[in-house]
Amino acid sequence: MKLNCDLGESFGAWKMGLDSSVMPHIDMANIACGFHAGDADVMASTLTLAKQYNVQIGAHPSYPDLQGFGRRSMNLSASELINCLHYQIAAVEGMAKVQGLTLSYVKPHGALYNDMMADETILNTVMHAIAIYPTPLKLMLLATAKAHSHQQLAKTYQLTLILEAFADRQYTDAGLLVSRNIPGSVHNKSALIAQVKQLLTTGCVTTQSGKVLPLHADSLCVHSDNEASIALIQEIKALCQTR
Amino acid sequence: MKLNCDLGESFGAWKMGLDSSVMPHIDMANIACGFHAGDADVMASTLTLAKQYNVQIGAHPSYPDLQGFGRRSMNLSASELINCLHYQIAAVEGMAKVQGLTLSYVKPHGALYNDMMADETILNTVMHAIAIYPTPLKLMLLATAKAHSHQQLAKTYQLTLILEAFADRQYTDAGLLVSRNIPGSVHNKSALIAQVKQLLTTGCVTTQSGKVLPLHADSLCVHSDNEASIALIQEIKALCQTR
Amino acid sequence: MKLNCDLGESFGAWKMGLDSSVMPHIDMANIACGFHAGDADVMASTLTLAKQYNVQIGAHPSYPDLQGFGRRSMNLSASELINCLHYQIAAVEGMAKVQGLTLSYVKPHGALYNDMMADETILNTVMHAIAIYPTPLKLMLLATAKAHSHQQLAKTYQLTLILEAFADRQYTDAGLLVSRNIPGSVHNKSALIAQVKQLLTTGCVTTQSGKVLPLHADSLCVHSDNEASIALIQEIKALCQTR
Amino acid sequence: MKLNCDLGESFGAWKMGLDSSVMPHIDMANIACGFHAGDADVMASTLTLAKQYNVQIGAHPSYPDLQGFGRRSMNLSASELINCLHYQIAAVEGMAKVQGLTLSYVKPHGALYNDMMADETILNTVMHAIAIYPTPLKLMLLATAKAHSHQQLAKTYQLTLILEAFADRQYTDAGLLVSRNIPGSVHNKSALIAQVKQLLTTGCVTTQSGKVLPLHADSLCVHSDNEASIALIQEIKALCQTR
Repeated sequence: MKLNCDLGESFGAWKMGLDSSVMPHIDMANIACGFHAGDADVMASTLTLAKQYNVQIGAHPSYPDLQGFGRRSMNLSASELINCLHYQIAAVEGMAKVQGLTLSYVKPHGALYNDMMADETILNTVMHAIAIYPTPLKLMLLATAKAHSHQQLAKTYQLTLILEAFADRQYTDAGLLVSRNIPGSVHNKSALIAQVKQLLTTGCVTTQSGKVLPLHADSLCVHSDNEASIALIQEIKALCQTR
Repeated sequence: MKLNCDLGESFGAWKMGLDSSVMPHIDMANIACGFHAGDADVMASTLTLAKQYNVQIGAHPSYPDLQGFGRRSMNLSASELINCLHYQIAAVEGMAKVQGLTLSYVKPHGALYNDMMADETILNTVMHAIAIYPTPLKLMLLATAKAHSHQQLAKTYQLTLILEAFADRQYTDAGLLVSRNIPGSVHNKSALIAQVKQLLTTGCVTTQSGKVLPLHADSLCVHSDNEASIALIQEIKALCQTR
Repeated sequence: MKLNCDLGESFGAWKMGLDSSVMPHIDMANIACGFHAGDADVMASTLTLAKQYNVQIGAHPSYPDLQGFGRRSMNLSASELINCLHYQIAAVEGMAKVQGLTLSYVKPHGALYNDMMADETILNTVMHAIAIYPTPLKLMLLATAKAHSHQQLAKTYQLTLILEAFADRQYTDAGLLVSRNIPGSVHNKSALIAQVKQLLTTGCVTTQSGKVLPLHADSLCVHSDNEASIALIQEIKALCQTR
Repeated sequence: MKLNCDLGESFGAWKMGLDSSVMPHIDMANIACGFHAGDADVMASTLTLAKQYNVQIGAHPSYPDLQGFGRRSMNLSASELINCLHYQIAAVEGMAKVQGLTLSYVKPHGALYNDMMADETILNTVMHAIAIYPTPLKLMLLATAKAHSHQQLAKTYQLTLILEAFADRQYTDAGLLVSRNIPGSVHNKSALIAQVKQLLTTGCVTTQSGKVLPLHADSLCVHSDNEASIALIQEIKALCQTR
């Protein structure tokens, strides 16, 4: 079970996330490309850090909404979305090559991620965009109850998926994340650790309604907000390794 | 003598330049990368057009100043400039690859171009940025009286230069362009045609002061502002071919 | 019947609209505030032009989407939308005062205009934002079959509405504009003139389905795209005055 | 002696400065206007905070350079600078009025502040911009050895100056700040407290070279970077009040 984390989300003079603290503990770094966060300088230093700890790198593209941190849905046409993805993927891929690194996957960010999971048309557009990009890149998306049909769809695009689960979030019966606005949707530490153990040992999560839902995940998404998050990541990592 | 033209300088709903009219007549397209002009959609359609007419493509990166069209000097640090160049070059290179195209050179835009010609430190930073970019790319800059020393400098970076001359601009004795703000600095049609002929036949221009200055140029920069510019480009192209 | 027109939609080096040609012929100028178009320089010169021809001025605020020209819906929270409106209204109002001009109304732009007409919650947020703005400003919106209930709603905010109709667009039976994507939705010249005459003489439009729909309008929206549009505006103006 | 502080420098999801901790202790809040920091939401909440503690508010406009936090010089024309200042001042003034607040001064930010202090032409442009703005606003600038000539110049624009000194920065003999890049240019706590005491009791600072320089200051600039800064502000405030 690999750990992935959104990184490089500082911008200009503003810092976000403890990138240098978290990098030693993760396997995959989702790197912001400048549309919701990150800029050329932040990207360069995040890539340097990823190289130092031999962490796999992915593009973390977003709707073009810096002020909204890519968290607000935007009604882009299919071709606008494709070009917007290519631009961001290309920017981070080229900057990675400058440091001798190879980009290996794409994880859409924020509202785009949610829209892709909720709307088949957008998911198809994202898959198409990645499929026609000349470098073979995997697509990271949410491991849900629909994972099988997502795999089938990906196959038509000759695309490999990386299915991710969340340690800290409560699940609906559909295997989607319960909205952050709902009380109890973000686990406390013990619930979080329990969910990780359940995922690792049984490949299931217990949903909001109490249902035990099988959820095959290739990767766990973790966060680098503060020192407590970093400590938690180390615990999660230990759990993954002892298994 | 190859013709190069700045293209892809539309942005969003705003159109600039007659890209589809000029593309059939030029050899090299300098493509805006989104920092002074161009956006992912404009870049994609400009690249499609370049492919259609088999035109060589170059990145046309700028200071990050959309409202000022990259025409205002900005005091970037060396590392900021390098990252800003890599980001833009990478974006256009990746989008070109999506269409099966290969990026072959870089021509800095506007104030960055002028600053690079006026300030050795900035020129060194630009050369260094291109030299460490993993794809071998040439650098297009102004053919001046200092061309020899520019060639020497480029050699230290193992960089190939493309020296460009301007058909429509008056020259100083140093082989620099007379500022657009000075009356007479932009040639009328007959002076322009005369300057092209002089360049093609003698490899010289007659400067503002009347001096005949040798100027080796690999490429002529032309403009696609309006229908008259397109007609002019066709005349210039005919001159180049009959020679 | 007053003529209103979206103006100041140039940005930086990019020109849009024949502002100086259209200004002499209109009564109300909807001035872009920098979020979908316009910048401080464009705003200043548009305001100067409005002053010269004694044209009433309104703020034309938008979602923050320069590349999409404010034409893409964005999912802003109520407080984000209110602040985003206040910022833009304040910017244009203060710049107007610099030239001794008084701002008198607000007309939301593009996707925000459409969202406001389609969604009561957004309409309420827009009305609230204008109502709490310290300068008394009217709200311009589409004259539809629901105009009476819009007037009632506006009354609860102590807000005055300016109802606008479109000369060049076909109407649905609900008094909404038929989408531009539908063939026939944009009138040719004779249908446009006929619709203006019908509005002026009977206060009705004939909808897509052939129904005659009463539509009280205080203002007609006209466009300044090209020379033909300017000529058309002069014809429309003559019709308004002879009536 | 009034304390002023740069505030509202968060942007979107990024936080900067302990605005709510520092607001109770200061007299004047310099509010970012969206060009180097701040956005409509940040501005609204900063203004609410200023209202709560009855703090005087000033506009803190910048060059348009979000990624560079307004710290990089940009070569704007005089009219561009004037419009850019008016837009920002107007935006914050109107948003202040929404909350019943009155804007009372302007303090240029970062590179614009430095350029204004170093270049008479830019200082004249800034003064002209504020002088023609319809609301009477004071201009905050650095108290230097040239304060008298700055006052004379301000008089020609019928402008009132607020001269500010820095508690934490070493001075040159010209009364300018020693560059942050030079070791020792930023005082440790005891040197800082000593400089404040000297300013309060003698109206002088001891410069880098050891010279005692008279410096009339109306306000002291303080910072809200972290908890230590807040504690320091409280000490400085106590010194100001006991005097």
